[in-house]
Amino acid sequence: MEKNKQSLAIQFGRLVRRLRVALALSQEDFADLCGLHRTYIGAIERGEKTISIETASKLAKALHIPLSELFLLLEKEREN
Amino acid sequence: MEKNKQSLAIQFGRLVRRLRVALALSQEDFADLCGLHRTYIGAIERGEKTISIETASKLAKALHIPLSELFLLLEKEREN
Repeated sequence: MEKNKQSLAIQFGRLVRRLRVALALSQEDFADLCGLHRTYIGAIERGEKTISIETASKLAKALHIPLSELFLLLEKEREN
Repeated sequence: MEKNKQSLAIQFGRLVRRLRVALALSQEDFADLCGLHRTYIGAIERGEKTISIETASKLAKALHIPLSELFLLLEKEREN
């Protein structure tokens, strides 16, 4: 269970990083858009944080995709 | 922001409750399926808890739907 838990956070973080980079946003600019701190974004992207659905919602908004689509992308990655 | 945050948790909780009831599961049986405590499920369903994406993932599994679909249903509710 712990392994899966870590895996979810790590894969979620990697996905967020990839989408952020695809939008040509720095961690700092992305953090501003999310209303979060840059170091917190860094920790999320490294999968070091257990994030709430509210935080996930802020990230999705800043990435201009619905939260459901963010998780759909995550599920597609986890299938592979 | 606080209002939206509360709203997300409340709407998420209501949705989870509705899906659980649709599966004819008691809070206790659902809690067992999720590997969580019944009182915690109650608090989630009342929108009193800020839940992690890992917890949301456990709830979705017990409801037999992908996490993305759970959030898709939530987004549809929030549109109305």
